[in-house]
Amino acid sequence: MRIGICGLGTVGFGVLTLIAKNAEEIRRKTGFVIEIAQVGNRNADPLGLNRQIEVASAKGDTWHISTQFTSDIFDVVRNPDVDVVLELIGGTDVALKLVTEAIRNRKHVVTANKALIAMHGDEIFAQAAAAGVQVRFEAAIAGGIPIVKSIREGLAANRIAWLVGIINGTTNYILTEMEQAGTNLRFEDVLKEAQQLGYAEADPTFDVEGIDAAHKLTILSSIAFGTPLQFAAVYTEGISGITSEDIRYADELGYRIRHLGIARKSENGVELRVHPALIRKEEMLAQVNGVMNAVMVASDSAGRTMYYGAGAGAGPTASAVVADVIDIARSEGSTGIANLGFTPKDIQALPVVAIEEIACPCYLRFSVLDQPGVMAQLSTVLSQHDISIEALIQKDAHGGNAEIVIVTNEVIEKSINASIVEIEALSVVQGDVTRIRIADLHE
Amino acid sequence: MRIGICGLGTVGFGVLTLIAKNAEEIRRKTGFVIEIAQVGNRNADPLGLNRQIEVASAKGDTWHISTQFTSDIFDVVRNPDVDVVLELIGGTDVALKLVTEAIRNRKHVVTANKALIAMHGDEIFAQAAAAGVQVRFEAAIAGGIPIVKSIREGLAANRIAWLVGIINGTTNYILTEMEQAGTNLRFEDVLKEAQQLGYAEADPTFDVEGIDAAHKLTILSSIAFGTPLQFAAVYTEGISGITSEDIRYADELGYRIRHLGIARKSENGVELRVHPALIRKEEMLAQVNGVMNAVMVASDSAGRTMYYGAGAGAGPTASAVVADVIDIARSEGSTGIANLGFTPKDIQALPVVAIEEIACPCYLRFSVLDQPGVMAQLSTVLSQHDISIEALIQKDAHGGNAEIVIVTNEVIEKSINASIVEIEALSVVQGDVTRIRIADLHE
Repeated sequence: MRIGICGLGTVGFGVLTLIAKNAEEIRRKTGFVIEIAQVGNRNADPLGLNRQIEVASAKGDTWHISTQFTSDIFDVVRNPDVDVVLELIGGTDVALKLVTEAIRNRKHVVTANKALIAMHGDEIFAQAAAAGVQVRFEAAIAGGIPIVKSIREGLAANRIAWLVGIINGTTNYILTEMEQAGTNLRFEDVLKEAQQLGYAEADPTFDVEGIDAAHKLTILSSIAFGTPLQFAAVYTEGISGITSEDIRYADELGYRIRHLGIARKSENGVELRVHPALIRKEEMLAQVNGVMNAVMVASDSAGRTMYYGAGAGAGPTASAVVADVIDIARSEGSTGIANLGFTPKDIQALPVVAIEEIACPCYLRFSVLDQPGVMAQLSTVLSQHDISIEALIQKDAHGGNAEIVIVTNEVIEKSINASIVEIEALSVVQGDVTRIRIADLHE
Repeated sequence: MRIGICGLGTVGFGVLTLIAKNAEEIRRKTGFVIEIAQVGNRNADPLGLNRQIEVASAKGDTWHISTQFTSDIFDVVRNPDVDVVLELIGGTDVALKLVTEAIRNRKHVVTANKALIAMHGDEIFAQAAAAGVQVRFEAAIAGGIPIVKSIREGLAANRIAWLVGIINGTTNYILTEMEQAGTNLRFEDVLKEAQQLGYAEADPTFDVEGIDAAHKLTILSSIAFGTPLQFAAVYTEGISGITSEDIRYADELGYRIRHLGIARKSENGVELRVHPALIRKEEMLAQVNGVMNAVMVASDSAGRTMYYGAGAGAGPTASAVVADVIDIARSEGSTGIANLGFTPKDIQALPVVAIEEIACPCYLRFSVLDQPGVMAQLSTVLSQHDISIEALIQKDAHGGNAEIVIVTNEVIEKSINASIVEIEALSVVQGDVTRIRIADLHE
């Protein structure tokens, strides 16, 4: 599979990095290597590199990629060595010309460009069908979340009733910051903060006024209901009118405020709207904070399913772009998808780590006699096993007994086991010790 | 695409119902009709029907399906008119023989059988590869959530670090019931309640002791890391030891208790474990209540993504089974997936409903003069537009002004607009009325 990349911005570099970093893992999964035949960027050779591009991961690892470089992105779509064109330049005018010419030259197209698909998708898809090539756009919506795939394929047997999404990280960040601050934080101030953190553009209109979300909603609605793309008809309202008072009142009433994209099939057609909305605190969508995205889909057979993850950024977007490349390769080469997602000869045995060797923080509950020196005895045993106490609850005695609950640091299981045996042997401890592991998702 | 169904239990009937109910929607999406060539069930002709099966939806709609019926399920895997065998009988002994013979007869296989894949998957996949047929098992894990697809395809470009799932509805129901009751509800009592509601089997061991979750975790781990299936090596601990006190203490410490399946790649191999665990209240997984399932996947490029939905039941399981059938057909026929997930000639224009015609409950905030009769004036205007007040907050006056917040019933947008115009014209109302729509996900 030979790809040509048009556009070397954040996403373009993210794709290069991912392909370099995970070349071997992708080969294990698919049986092939993604070859970067050419890279085009309109700023002539911005890195002073001609045939080699250096990409670096956040961890500081670097990879050198040998490829052809061009400052004319149209070279890429004319290059006979390119099978798949990655349109990562953004915008709609040049991007449309580029994609059109790529299709005319019978190249598959992968794009991250939501505006392009929302505004010109119908035309592009017709050209692609005529040319017999694929156009894929998973990265256009909700970054690394495979939402296009989930609706088009995972829920293919369903009639979809509605979908509701938090599909713009900037507005969700601003609203949840205002919510969590609790005080009179103004929209303008949080927007400035978001700009400093890189979560909002210098000109934030596209995000804050809901245009970006409307692009994404347009696409989601069409794949849910099988309609043409109707971006111009989306009702779009931004979040600049939301105040801290509204967030507080909403809270009192049992709601949070989120900026939602809503598509719903009704008797009269489809509802297509982007606007701030109150949503019950218990709803999963109300738990989506900061720059995260989520889409909930209500379908007639699967019921409600929700898809959650990072909606933007180089890594998540690149993940979706490369997944599209892999999908094209798997379908083109008719290799299909291996049963376990890795080709049979690349299945590698890995030992399962014995439970005794696993490290977790732990919750421990003891019933003890209510007498002096108990805590000293318990903590001595724990410290002898290098276990430290992160939190502790001691409950008033009833009937001469007291209950002690301890949260430990992360400890290897066999140390906890040994300490429990010793603690259960103490004369002040009544009955068995209860131990529940803590899932620390931050590792 | 001609299918043969083995097993007419809850899932088998769910699949029949779904194919009948959504035949036209599936044709719009794929360009083909799923033909039911034969149905086999070991209870000879349980319905007294021979060539016609009647299925009914929850709404009471019925469909008649003409097909061949057999009481020998092995007839189905030998039937030359069957392209894809749906193994929906459960268990592992007969199911393994059935699937093996189906593959030998060069039929694709779709199964919802987690035990079969977790215990015999390696062998089945090798047979399928040799015969050149597909084996799909989306329905084996987390019901209607397309989690197998998301990992094998959506996240294909990623190295996966870990995944943590709530993958058994029975144990999650019991734990969240104990949590929400708040009092001293005992495990045994909630289990009985779950059995009465049909959320737990008469013999609940498989679910409650974590064996069902271990089957699913085995499969998830192998598709995440590309290892053989190692069910026997999963550390498995059930929830029967969890008490209400532990749930209360965990709450005090900032945690909830969930029954988790955890697969993690470590330096020494893979961790594979099913056990109850404390999890921080802020985590998305801690929001998963009742019989719902969710899997969070930590990957190196996409970051954390989470997949949420119903983990069991006829509808969700059938959704996954039929999605697998559609995937096979799309890949076999080389029709591929249409850009919008519907074939171009089945894209149907649907009018976008004008925002004025949309019905929502609304949040309204008014600043009013602090004088008698204000509420009467406001509520008169609202009632003239048939708007009723569902909730109201009135805040103490500051500087002669008071703030009133109202939550309305579901009202058509143009009625709200008209009432706002009239309310803003009232001399007692200061400035503009704030209106935020409420997303009512229960419609």
